[in-house]
Formats: sequence, structure tokens, C-alpha cells
Amino acid sequence: MKTIYVNATFFTMDKENQIIENGMMIVQDHTISYIGQHDEQQLADADHVVNLGGKWIMPGLVNAHSHIVMTLLRGIGDDMLLKPWLETKIWPIESQFTTEIASVSSQLGIMEMMKSGTTTFSDMFNPNGIDAGAVMETIGETGMRGAFSYTIFSLGTEKDQKANLMGAEQFSKNYKAFADGRLTTMVAPHSPYACTPEAIMESARIAKENDLMVHIHVSETDFEILDIEKRYGSRPVEHLRRLGLFDQPTVMAHGVVLNDEERAILKQHDVRVAHNPISNLKLGSGIADVVSLLDAGIKVGVATDGVASNNNFDMFEEMRTAALLQKGMYKDATKFPAQTALAMATRMGAEAIGMGHTGSLEAGKKADFITIYPYNKEHLQPLSEAYSHLLYAARGNDVCDVYIDGKAVVKDGRCLTIDEEKVIAETNRLQGTLSR
Amino acid sequence: MKTIYVNATFFTMDKENQIIENGMMIVQDHTISYIGQHDEQQLADADHVVNLGGKWIMPGLVNAHSHIVMTLLRGIGDDMLLKPWLETKIWPIESQFTTEIASVSSQLGIMEMMKSGTTTFSDMFNPNGIDAGAVMETIGETGMRGAFSYTIFSLGTEKDQKANLMGAEQFSKNYKAFADGRLTTMVAPHSPYACTPEAIMESARIAKENDLMVHIHVSETDFEILDIEKRYGSRPVEHLRRLGLFDQPTVMAHGVVLNDEERAILKQHDVRVAHNPISNLKLGSGIADVVSLLDAGIKVGVATDGVASNNNFDMFEEMRTAALLQKGMYKDATKFPAQTALAMATRMGAEAIGMGHTGSLEAGKKADFITIYPYNKEHLQPLSEAYSHLLYAARGNDVCDVYIDGKAVVKDGRCLTIDEEKVIAETNRLQGTLSR
Repeated sequence: MKTIYVNATFFTMDKENQIIENGMMIVQDHTISYIGQHDEQQLADADHVVNLGGKWIMPGLVNAHSHIVMTLLRGIGDDMLLKPWLETKIWPIESQFTTEIASVSSQLGIMEMMKSGTTTFSDMFNPNGIDAGAVMETIGETGMRGAFSYTIFSLGTEKDQKANLMGAEQFSKNYKAFADGRLTTMVAPHSPYACTPEAIMESARIAKENDLMVHIHVSETDFEILDIEKRYGSRPVEHLRRLGLFDQPTVMAHGVVLNDEERAILKQHDVRVAHNPISNLKLGSGIADVVSLLDAGIKVGVATDGVASNNNFDMFEEMRTAALLQKGMYKDATKFPAQTALAMATRMGAEAIGMGHTGSLEAGKKADFITIYPYNKEHLQPLSEAYSHLLYAARGNDVCDVYIDGKAVVKDGRCLTIDEEKVIAETNRLQGTLSR
Repeated sequence: MKTIYVNATFFTMDKENQIIENGMMIVQDHTISYIGQHDEQQLADADHVVNLGGKWIMPGLVNAHSHIVMTLLRGIGDDMLLKPWLETKIWPIESQFTTEIASVSSQLGIMEMMKSGTTTFSDMFNPNGIDAGAVMETIGETGMRGAFSYTIFSLGTEKDQKANLMGAEQFSKNYKAFADGRLTTMVAPHSPYACTPEAIMESARIAKENDLMVHIHVSETDFEILDIEKRYGSRPVEHLRRLGLFDQPTVMAHGVVLNDEERAILKQHDVRVAHNPISNLKLGSGIADVVSLLDAGIKVGVATDGVASNNNFDMFEEMRTAALLQKGMYKDATKFPAQTALAMATRMGAEAIGMGHTGSLEAGKKADFITIYPYNKEHLQPLSEAYSHLLYAARGNDVCDVYIDGKAVVKDGRCLTIDEEKVIAETNRLQGTLSR
């Protein structure tokens, strides 16, 4: 099936940062086969020609770290420190979760992600009390792309911990290539503080034997650094390196508290960082030094974290905040220019989480793209400065259509793959059943 | 005329932070005469009863510092340092402005403000080349509330400077109570670095003689502090105090670089601060210590600055950023809770800019309010956490209706007082005429 998209400005986000005005994009089944100048001759054997009506087109956004199963917890326990927030608010409520709650929460989260322009996500979920396979099936039906990873915690009895590891290994294997290859898994030890050294080593083994990436929270707060140093005699990065975790391709969420030595270790092992600027601010963790990460040659993606610490999945706001914070922290407006932030939320972010087959509009890449109709939006005027507006002025709900794998999942701001009204109604009904 | 609004949740933003579910608000002409529980008897002699259909209602947002005449410059010269940005981008283009450009730019800015929930603004405009009275007339027609202030610069010949001061005095007097009292003026010396001591003293005189507030940029960057110290032997705050400026009620934009001694001076003279978190980050100025300002008892409002350094007028994003930054800077999630940020963008912001007759939903206050319809918005679920969502999840275009002075200016997301299509078309046409 050959679909041709015409009459649009394409912001390719390729390495040359090409912008193609009045361009053409050809999608063969799920994949972009051509992007460039309009070529009338190509139209002859097209199965479909889609006139984009002068819209702006860019690759779908890539959210490198999220917790969609927690979407139902939005707004619960704001303005609290990380530890009491987790221990007195989030975990007690999460412990009541059922498969139904996890599925509806995931649908709500994905609906918000897709409608605000995100086409790929990398997620960690708490498997307790839920049938993770059933939730994965639900996610598959949404049309979303990404990795949904079963969290490994060293909690409870030895038996509990074994069951958790076995569950993680089974799930990671079974759903490694799911939903036509749109969905995958990573091995996800929660963090150096919530996993024993044995669980970290087991995680490394599972990742190695199954050729999977690792997804873990590391170096989020000053407290974590002190805690791990006290427990194990070294800071988190060195601790995990010694345990062999970084011998597997690893994405580490946060990286707020890092020194030069640690950045060198991350670079050496090609450990990637998922930067969560808003969550790091909201939980009082601080501001990650992303400029130094990039200077050290480390791959970085932008991420929202869960909406309980954000509190939305708007990647436009997230990448803008990422850019603004580095400028403010360095007191230098030239740091982290628009193209860096936009690349980090698209091509670079995709590469960071092992999804390099997406993230830019180039021949050979998957047809994951979003459209924006700017002509009636006052905050996107004047139109001539479109590239600037994509980073500095746009919001999630400027997104008009969303395509993943060549298929429309959002059209004119409505989700085609999820029953919006039903999910919202179920969200409120189910949230009411949780005791707090 | 007695209009009664029923069937809504009212977030009053009064000092007690009252939330009234299924409440009632009575507006007598331009003013709220009752807000509280639904009272069926009141309906008998109402001229109009408006059923708000279960919406969330809050006071209109207050933008304490903007430059609407520059709205046409959105996206021009991103990622640059303040000085070259002003000198090589903004000022050369601004020097080509005409009354027509200034009027259209103001309409575009106000349209964006109103549609995203702002009902009051305090603005400084560059009067060069424009008929300021004509622009004020245009603003009057939009239904907006606020202060539009003629900037005093010590630029050009002595004659130019005199003309500028005379223009400012005349304008400030003539438009002090304009458009049924919705619009006013302040005396606006640009900054300690762009005004001579004489111009500052003249500003103080004009403010005193005409009973006007002062609006000025102060302590925005480290460079400014060094520059003023070098020129005048003291830091900006002390310099302005000595010149007598703070003997008038003053709103100072920015206040990024302040020490304890300076905060004590500001408190002593009741100088208020308009905090511009996004602009301060984007221009690399830094992060203002708002927690210390509040601890010192200083009145603070939230503001966007102009969209050339923001790049939108979304006050939801702005107040959220204000809250997030203090938490991140202090590494303490409990700092600057939701109610502080929401108050600063409503009641406290209004008080800071001398508009205390607005900013909360209370009997006796002007009927400036906005409505949000949350039921079909995934990022505002679950509904039970509404108060949290207003700060941490909402965006400007969640706003449904906007009322100023008891009159609807936006209905279902459409501006009733401005021809949206015409203003957008004119914006693009006029921007194309400017040489860059």
C-alpha cells in the first residue's frame, strides 16, 4: 500500500535539520520510502493521496520515561518530598490496583500521549496485583509504539522477590516483539535503592540472555547518592557498573546528581539518560546538567515521568522546559538551542531508547508523524517563525493528526483507537473505588 | 442588571481558598454581589440566569508584566544573549513599527491572553513611531482590563528625551481612567540602565503628581548589577531608592538578582515584583528567588514578559513554571505549593499591580472570571483532583469562556471582541513588511 502525503511543510528533524516546504512524503505500508520535493509523477500509482492542507508535519515525539499505569493518580499528593510521597501516597494506593484499573489508567495515559503528539514511549510499570499481559494487550490495541517494562523490586519475602524476578523475565521474553513489532519490553530494575545487588545482577543476566535493554531510575536525588554510598561504599553509577548492569545497553532515568567521573563511566558504557525536567523540579530533586551530558557524548532523551509527578504528558511543554532550564542554570541564552531540544524529543530520544527506526522523517524510518494546523492559532503567529514556535510556543493540544506505523491513531484531535468518553468515565469510577 | 451564574464549581482564590461546589454567583452589572451556596430564592428577580453546566470557574489570571506591542516579534532571535538580542534583533525591528503594526500586534497579544484565561495585564510599550492613543483605543475595544504604560527611555538627543518624557506624562494623564475604568496607565521608566538619573527622577515626579504607579525593569541580570554599580556606585535597587523612585508605589519586573539588603529595601517601600520565570530562563538571566521575596513580605505577581522572550502568553504554563522552579532551586518539593502559585497568578498578582478590585471571586470584586469544561479533557482526569490540575496539568487552551467586568469576551474558545481571522491575516501581512 502506497500512501502519498502532499501539501505540507515537513520538519524532518533529520541530522541536517531539513525543512521541506510544499513537500511530499511517500509511505509504503508502515515505512517512509520518500520525503522531499513534490514530484507529480509519483502520484500516478499511489493507493491514496492525502492532502495535508498546508499543515506543519514533524516526527512523533518520543517520551523516554513514563509510568502510564499511574495515570489515575494524577494530582494525588502534590508538593511533597519524594520519600513520603512514595511511601504514604503512591505505593499504598498502587497496592490496591487491579488489572482493570491498570488497563484503564494505561488507556487514559496513552490517549493523552497520542493526542498531544507522542508516538513512542518507554514505560516502567508496577506489576503487583495485575495481569501484565492483559494490560499489554490493551496497549497493543491503542496503536502506540514503545517499550512497556515490568519493574523489578526487592520487596517482601525472598519468595516474593523470586516471583517478581520470574515474572519480569517471563513478561520481558513473551512481549519482546509484540503488536507487529510496535511494542517491546526492557528489563527494569527499579533503582539501586529499591533493588538488592542480587536483583541488579539478575536483571543484567535477563537482559543479556534475551538481548534486551535495561531501564532503571538512577541518581535522582542527593539522598539517593548518600544512601547508596552508605550501603555499598560507592555512588549509584559506580555501584551499578561494578554489578555489571552497564554491560547491557541501559537507559537510566533522571541522572540529576552526576559528577564528571560518572559521566565518563556512562559514556564509556554507552548508558543513555532519560531527562525528566518537570518531575525533577516538582519532586525537588533539582536540575540535571544536560549540557554536560551532551558535551560528554552521552545520548539523552526527554521524558515526562508519570503524571503523578508532572502532572501531564505534554512533551511540547517538557522539551521547552528542558531547553529553558539549561539556559537559566548556565545563565546563558545560547545554551541548548531550539534544534537541540527538538532533536532530543524526536531523533535523539528515539536513538537513546533503542528506537532509532523512528524519530525523524527520512526514507527507511517508520511512518510515525504528527500534524499541526497553525493558521487559526494566535500563539503560532507569525507563521514565518514556525520552527521556533514548535519548541517555544506550541502546546500538546495544537496537534491535529497523529500517525503511528503509517496508520492514523488521532484525527482532528480525536483518538480513533480508544473510546475517549468510556475511558474518562471509567477513570473516574475506578478512582472512586480506591481508599486513600 | 442582575445575572446569576449557577451549576458550577467555584475556585474563589479568596484568602481562605474556598471552593464552592454546585455554587451560585450573582453579578450586578460589572461586580460580584454574591458568591456561595445555591439559593433558589435569588433566581426570582434575575435578569439572566446562566447555567454553567458543571464547569470549573476561577478568577481571570493576572499577567503582571508584558509587552503586547511586540507580539508580532514572536520567534525572532531565539537562543541569544539579552544585549545582542535587544540591540541587533528587537530594537532595529521595533524602530520600524507603525501605529497599524502596534495595533494589530496588541490585538493578537490580547486575543491570545484572553483566550488563555488572562483578564488583566500590566504592559510597557515602546512609543516610538506610534500614536499611542490610537493603540489604547484599540485595546479599549477588546474588553481587556489592565495598565498600558508608555516607556520612558533616555535615548537620542536631549530634545528626543524631553519629547519622550512629555509624551509619557501626557499619555499617562490622558488615559489614567479609560474604557469605563478598565484601562489605566503607569509611569514606566524602562530600567536603571536605559534611563538617566534625571529621567528616573522625572518619572517619580510624574507618578507623584498624577497619583500613578511606577512600572520598571530592575535587577534582571548579573550584567545589569555590575553596569549600574560601575556607573553610579551602587546596585540598582539602592540607586533607584536614592533617586526617590520607590517613594511612589512601584512594580518592578524581574528581580532576578537581589540580596537580603535589597529585599529589605523593597519591603520597606512596598515595592512589588513581577516575576517572569520563563523569560528569565530563556534569556539566560537566571531564576529569581521568589520564596525569599515572599518570606520578606514582598507582594509578587506572575508574568510572561513579551512573547519574543517566552514565547507565548499562557499564564497556566507560567504559574506552573514559577512553582516548579522554586521547588527545583531549593531542592524541596514542599516549597511554593499549588495555592501559592495560583494565588500569585490571581489575587496576589492583582494586588501587586494595584488591581486589588479583581483577582478573586468575592462579593465586591469585579466580575472577571474564566470557565473550564474538564469532562472531555484527558489531562484533567481524575476530576476529583481539580485544584491540583488547575496548577499542574491545565493549559491555556483549556479555557472555555472568559468574562471581564461582567461581560463575555470569549465564548467556547472564540474571542467575541476581536476578529480573529482578520488579526491573524494582518499579523502575517504586516510582519512581511518589516526588514530584518
